[in-house]
Amino acid sequence: MKKISKMVIRRLPRYYRYLSDLKAEGVERISSTELSQRLKITASQIRQDLNCFGGFGQQGYGYNVVQLHEAIGEILGLSAQYKMIIIGAGNLGHALANYAGFARRGFRLVAMFDVNPDIIGTRIHDVTVLHVDELEAFCKAEKPEIAVLTLTKPAAPAIAEKLATLGIRGIWNFSYMELVAPPGVVVENVHLSDSLMTLSHHITDATYEKKES
Amino acid sequence: MKKISKMVIRRLPRYYRYLSDLKAEGVERISSTELSQRLKITASQIRQDLNCFGGFGQQGYGYNVVQLHEAIGEILGLSAQYKMIIIGAGNLGHALANYAGFARRGFRLVAMFDVNPDIIGTRIHDVTVLHVDELEAFCKAEKPEIAVLTLTKPAAPAIAEKLATLGIRGIWNFSYMELVAPPGVVVENVHLSDSLMTLSHHITDATYEKKES
Repeated sequence: MKKISKMVIRRLPRYYRYLSDLKAEGVERISSTELSQRLKITASQIRQDLNCFGGFGQQGYGYNVVQLHEAIGEILGLSAQYKMIIIGAGNLGHALANYAGFARRGFRLVAMFDVNPDIIGTRIHDVTVLHVDELEAFCKAEKPEIAVLTLTKPAAPAIAEKLATLGIRGIWNFSYMELVAPPGVVVENVHLSDSLMTLSHHITDATYEKKES
Repeated sequence: MKKISKMVIRRLPRYYRYLSDLKAEGVERISSTELSQRLKITASQIRQDLNCFGGFGQQGYGYNVVQLHEAIGEILGLSAQYKMIIIGAGNLGHALANYAGFARRGFRLVAMFDVNPDIIGTRIHDVTVLHVDELEAFCKAEKPEIAVLTLTKPAAPAIAEKLATLGIRGIWNFSYMELVAPPGVVVENVHLSDSLMTLSHHITDATYEKKES
């Protein structure tokens, strides 16, 4: 398999989500033009993206929804089963734990961790909230691969370093700071407010356009 | 001001966040090379991006942090003050309400809405949770510009349509469905799991690379 560019990888989850919907609706095939209209990506970009990992499309037929869905899922590593822990059982940790979509995509939540005595021992979405002191013993026994960080900024880097020594391979980071990946760990930094700022730009822009016309 | 491409706009919040940090640290100027190392964007891409809205950089000096921060904030519409409401006061709504960064960037939370009688009337981060039935009267009186949707999929499209008639200009959508923007409204669809899928791909990829070498 040839190396797929980072930009293509970024677009794959969108293709995957949309194909999941089509599959659920029983749609058998779709053309790049239809995909294009829905996803607001040009048809030629779509063909180029999907050609990156072997052409699934056939001239005059389009793409087979089930096959393409499966192939993209494979590239995204969704056929693997990953054990996931959430560190920080506050509102955001709760919200993420309750999102059913993760389990469907192969991410199985196995534990949550916090330091707040009021919530340690409580059950959230079928898992128990443990004290962070139990992290090491838990990771050695259960070997989770993915950790979700919903901690505050100051606590995040030290926890990330620790997780790296405990065999965690991926960190999904919501701590509002850009975490530098410890050796052997992949970090995906989520900055929720980035898309709010983009939204704000578009509103401001629309206002200017109105004033000018 | 010439039209700035969508891809450049998508990168601006990252520049903005990093410049905020530099400003807080008292750093006066920064070169495109230093920005590049930190942001993992090539220096030539950075120069090209920032040239889009008038060159701020000077050869041999770099960028003035305060000026560039302010200029990008202006383009992102952060100098405006927006009134924001959150619809859906569950865990995710709570988490977003508690994120202090929004207020600092000009987004002022003025109300939250829900249908759950247990939480209506409670106070979250200085605002009261109101019943969705009060949405219309509230919007007419307070004229919020931005609505954050943390509802479940089925409820989202109808609420979005309603918000459009009530003067809402931007919808920040966390309902796990791709909302089509009603006329006159800008929608920013957030799909949290997209970055988890990207993370999963990188872990899988790293595994393949290890096996092959």
